[in-house]
Amino acid sequence: MIRALILYLLNIKPSHGYNIQRFIEVNGIDKWSRIQSGSIYYALDKLEKEGYIYTLKEERNGARIRKIYDITDAGKEELRNALKKELEKPIAGAESDKFMIYSMINKLTKEEITASVEKHLKVLREKKVWWEKGKKIKITEKSLKLEVLNFDMVISNLDYQIKWHEALLEQLDQVIESDNAQEQLISNVDFSTLNDVNYNDIDCEKYAKIEKFKAKIMQNPTDNLEQKLNEFIKLLTQK
Amino acid sequence: MIRALILYLLNIKPSHGYNIQRFIEVNGIDKWSRIQSGSIYYALDKLEKEGYIYTLKEERNGARIRKIYDITDAGKEELRNALKKELEKPIAGAESDKFMIYSMINKLTKEEITASVEKHLKVLREKKVWWEKGKKIKITEKSLKLEVLNFDMVISNLDYQIKWHEALLEQLDQVIESDNAQEQLISNVDFSTLNDVNYNDIDCEKYAKIEKFKAKIMQNPTDNLEQKLNEFIKLLTQK
Repeated sequence: MIRALILYLLNIKPSHGYNIQRFIEVNGIDKWSRIQSGSIYYALDKLEKEGYIYTLKEERNGARIRKIYDITDAGKEELRNALKKELEKPIAGAESDKFMIYSMINKLTKEEITASVEKHLKVLREKKVWWEKGKKIKITEKSLKLEVLNFDMVISNLDYQIKWHEALLEQLDQVIESDNAQEQLISNVDFSTLNDVNYNDIDCEKYAKIEKFKAKIMQNPTDNLEQKLNEFIKLLTQK
Repeated sequence: MIRALILYLLNIKPSHGYNIQRFIEVNGIDKWSRIQSGSIYYALDKLEKEGYIYTLKEERNGARIRKIYDITDAGKEELRNALKKELEKPIAGAESDKFMIYSMINKLTKEEITASVEKHLKVLREKKVWWEKGKKIKITEKSLKLEVLNFDMVISNLDYQIKWHEALLEQLDQVIESDNAQEQLISNVDFSTLNDVNYNDIDCEKYAKIEKFKAKIMQNPTDNLEQKLNEFIKLLTQK
């Protein structure tokens, strides 16, 4: 987004890097986006090498010389493309690697898990307060729906993350128990010989049966598991 | 997370890379996380160089030779550290660069904006269906709260993203109008001479006043704007 933002600003008027940096800082953009004001100079350099911007003139400011950049015709086209590309990107990744962490933590003590989770919960709760305060400040009756949604989306997301970590602590005994069962399962199965489950082809009911079967096995891991699983999957994925 | 996952699996039993790859594929982990099964071999190599795993033996499988890896004592410690670190990470970034895209799109036509947004909306809606189906399949009465929250969180997030893009299309005329006003403002202000607003120091009411003042200016951008803004900000940030 930093490229699009620089091109956007230079398309309005020629500017030096510091001006763009201050735009980002004064508007607090570095507070809620991944854009860091320090990354501007690198991006300006790169955009100039690519021919999207050029040095219009150099200005002396005390001992420093400032380059004033302007956008080129190619840059104007690049701005349009960059904006279209950004419009087609997700606002934030909905999926997360962290969804699997709780199935792997049985090697940590309950105290260690609790300490790490509480530490993160504190950060999440502080963030939520910051965003709620921001909403109070920024949103008026005249605000666009989009602006309201910016805040609601982040606050709801943080809320879910808080609930998730609270649920982890609340059901910690069950989580660890389930981790131990999974460990048993993994030690008994050679995954390299298991067949694939095609998640798109099979219907929900059939797949729900597989899941129940798996859960049953997890409760009492026995020998010959691998063979049983393979047979069961084969049976269920047959049309 | 790939490092933690590999160490987790090798801590249960020695395995070759293909076994780990199949674990990821059979469990569908590559479908909802950023973990790509292809990245395993690079990670195994790196972990071995770092001394966290070692080659226990090599097995011939037809024409291929498979390395069987096992975890070292240092690896067991690294696993515990990696798990703690993951527990302290956010599930997903709540903030987004995309929150500012709608204030920059007045150089695109309404048709171009609509085409890009509709394209992305299609992807979001399909994803939502996939996750809703997944929830139906995976969640039973015995599921942990955490597992239910995994699905609810993603579905709610996708819902917000869909609403956000629909709001953008719905208020497109107002969005473009507001973009034009912002462009006027930017062309009249030298941000490099503006003072900082300390978002943490000032109280909500004061800041709300600044926001209203800014909105007023945006409606009728005039000369001497910069000076006025500076004076106003100084006044309001005084204790």
